[in-house]
Amino acid sequence: MGYCLGYALIEGGDAAFSMDASAVTFGPGALAEVGAEATSLGLRRVALFTDARIGKLPPVDEARRSLERAGIDVVVYDEVHIEPTDRSFVEAARFAAEGRFDGYVSVGGGSVIDTCKAALLYATYPADFDAYVNRPIGEGREVPGPLPPHVACPTTTGTGAECTGIAVFDDTRRKAKTGIASRRLRPTRALVDPSATRTMPRSVVAASGFDVVSHALESYTARPFSTRPRASAANQRPMSQGANPWSDMGCKSALDLAGRYLLRAVADAEDEEALEAMAWAATLAGIAFGNAGVHLPHAMSYAVSGLCRSFTMPGYPEGEPLVPHGVSVVVNAPSVFRALAKTNPSRHLEAAAMLGAETRGAGPEDAGEVLATHLSGMMRAAGVPNGLAGVGYGEADVEALAAGTIVQARLVANAPCGVDEEGLRALFRGAFTYW
Amino acid sequence: MGYCLGYALIEGGDAAFSMDASAVTFGPGALAEVGAEATSLGLRRVALFTDARIGKLPPVDEARRSLERAGIDVVVYDEVHIEPTDRSFVEAARFAAEGRFDGYVSVGGGSVIDTCKAALLYATYPADFDAYVNRPIGEGREVPGPLPPHVACPTTTGTGAECTGIAVFDDTRRKAKTGIASRRLRPTRALVDPSATRTMPRSVVAASGFDVVSHALESYTARPFSTRPRASAANQRPMSQGANPWSDMGCKSALDLAGRYLLRAVADAEDEEALEAMAWAATLAGIAFGNAGVHLPHAMSYAVSGLCRSFTMPGYPEGEPLVPHGVSVVVNAPSVFRALAKTNPSRHLEAAAMLGAETRGAGPEDAGEVLATHLSGMMRAAGVPNGLAGVGYGEADVEALAAGTIVQARLVANAPCGVDEEGLRALFRGAFTYW
Repeated sequence: MGYCLGYALIEGGDAAFSMDASAVTFGPGALAEVGAEATSLGLRRVALFTDARIGKLPPVDEARRSLERAGIDVVVYDEVHIEPTDRSFVEAARFAAEGRFDGYVSVGGGSVIDTCKAALLYATYPADFDAYVNRPIGEGREVPGPLPPHVACPTTTGTGAECTGIAVFDDTRRKAKTGIASRRLRPTRALVDPSATRTMPRSVVAASGFDVVSHALESYTARPFSTRPRASAANQRPMSQGANPWSDMGCKSALDLAGRYLLRAVADAEDEEALEAMAWAATLAGIAFGNAGVHLPHAMSYAVSGLCRSFTMPGYPEGEPLVPHGVSVVVNAPSVFRALAKTNPSRHLEAAAMLGAETRGAGPEDAGEVLATHLSGMMRAAGVPNGLAGVGYGEADVEALAAGTIVQARLVANAPCGVDEEGLRALFRGAFTYW
Repeated sequence: MGYCLGYALIEGGDAAFSMDASAVTFGPGALAEVGAEATSLGLRRVALFTDARIGKLPPVDEARRSLERAGIDVVVYDEVHIEPTDRSFVEAARFAAEGRFDGYVSVGGGSVIDTCKAALLYATYPADFDAYVNRPIGEGREVPGPLPPHVACPTTTGTGAECTGIAVFDDTRRKAKTGIASRRLRPTRALVDPSATRTMPRSVVAASGFDVVSHALESYTARPFSTRPRASAANQRPMSQGANPWSDMGCKSALDLAGRYLLRAVADAEDEEALEAMAWAATLAGIAFGNAGVHLPHAMSYAVSGLCRSFTMPGYPEGEPLVPHGVSVVVNAPSVFRALAKTNPSRHLEAAAMLGAETRGAGPEDAGEVLATHLSGMMRAAGVPNGLAGVGYGEADVEALAAGTIVQARLVANAPCGVDEEGLRALFRGAFTYW
């Protein structure tokens, strides 16, 4: 069957991949363009989404003033819930529906951007909440048509939410984390302003930085696009189409940047060069995972976040248990890569080398150990919790964690090999402690 | 003023860059998706643009059958002029206007794709021909609104026309080559099918391959984005916004691929791996130059093509003088890089190394010579004409060539340093013969 740019083609498998790219403006001061951007999109009345902490900081003020200078009506919604829930999505959608906005601006981290996506969806095409939620948890209904413009302005260097068509939330009814996924949810334009990320507490730099690393590692090691069934056209390919030559480029650059700058950014919140490099890494990894999809560390993170009982982390809202998204992902990552590196040892070794690991003399059988050890060393140095035990889980939780993961069908299917609940339990057991 | 990802920021200069990306599907068999793609765009009656040579080959037949199987009316226009002219654009626009099409498909090289862009523009928003043509030759009027869908299917591995919003033509009235440039001209989707490029004659592989190399070299060495005046929003940045971190990524990958595969693809039209790699390099370089812009080798090529008296090349239409686009570009390239490498020696050395040159021991003062020598060595090995003399020009033409170049204001401004007509004459004189 031959090859496509080094990817082996198989009978009945896909032979092509599709690239959807985001319209991004990157650079210090980009946030101040939001007014002119809204004008060029023809907007007159805009909802500005943020959260209570970011809402008091300079980036939101700057965005509001830029919009107002452009003569645009702005109404701020600062009630976004960090790690959003079904309930917080519904409240935000009510605000959006009542406000009669012709466009949306989000200024914040992934929670803010994702809440804005969900709010404008339900305000534009009202439906029961479960209608658009991913199967099998929800009905997985398609978004019926185009959505109003959304300019996303990230203030963290991690989620890549500004480049993707996914909105993630905690389903409080089912104690499960899941999401809504549609190309139409992708923001119209992202304004990535590294100076807007200077407001991140150290713990947020670390959590969002490891989210970047995981996006890149997972997209780079996902099942190859050519192993999925053949698609008839671009819109028939899932957003999680698997690793491909286009996403590979973004992953490699992001891993290289994270290997050089992540620990510097965590160590010194004034290190502008490091924060800027991580903002760029986040953008590239966001574009990559928007075109390839993540796999098990993210699938498992949904259960880790969803089942959280008592863990809290400084820098995040007080008074409620919460495992920050990036932490809930990366605690699984060393265990997953240690176990699955055998599916493609050279890719895992390459990834380790790009992150800065010493790989001289390492053979294919060492790939998982080399990557897992290097990654957990970075986690330890950044002050990230030590595995699942570090965020409050033990053997008694393994059953529920695996059950909460297997339902993340879209992400589990994107793993480089088939995994069942028993396999997931083993992966969780391997993630208890790393040092 | 600080830095943005290694680019020095200056007072009053731009501090941000904008990324517009193309929707591309890449892979063997991608062409067969055109029917489903047209259906998903809601099309019912499509104009299929091609030229007389390609029109008889399998890719056009395959595209037409795919569209017809999807129940779409197809009318083929195979009168595209290779290296299009104002007259051929006008004729194509008349066909488009009379056909009452709701969408367009182009199957061919850059001439075909560019003609399709121009035809759908004038059919949708009729105007005097000069209205949309770049200043100072034309009026440079903005495209008034959105254009109908256009699915571009390249059959050469070079122009990147499928990723850009530029349509180039020979202005027969003024004996000058120029173009129409607008983001709105960018095709809705590109289907890049490496197996559709197997129909290229050897001379076309070489000419289009060196076009790829030039796109990447020029975008990589263009004036830095940060030296342009600050823009207020993404749509205020010119498409030729200058070298930036996003275009740099695509340039580097394209140069690396071209260094390894261009001569292999020229030497053996059956070398599928090499043709596929060049198709991918063309796509990446197309995305890069669509976001950065080319500079002097392309600006000069417009004069080289426009003033052609008697040169002909095998593999191209017989009976009329014509310098193929890629050849008209690359004959200038060694002279330009030899002279301008001093504006940024390390970038020129890096580029030479990515193309496969030996750069050990080379210092900044050697950068121009190393790159020029390596590039002209590749040209010689590929059987490309030996500089301007090889395509029929001599000292007597230098005045007219420089005068025909200086009016390409958009591209001349994108050079890494200011160049006047005297400077251009010197660059043309340096391009007469290379070996």
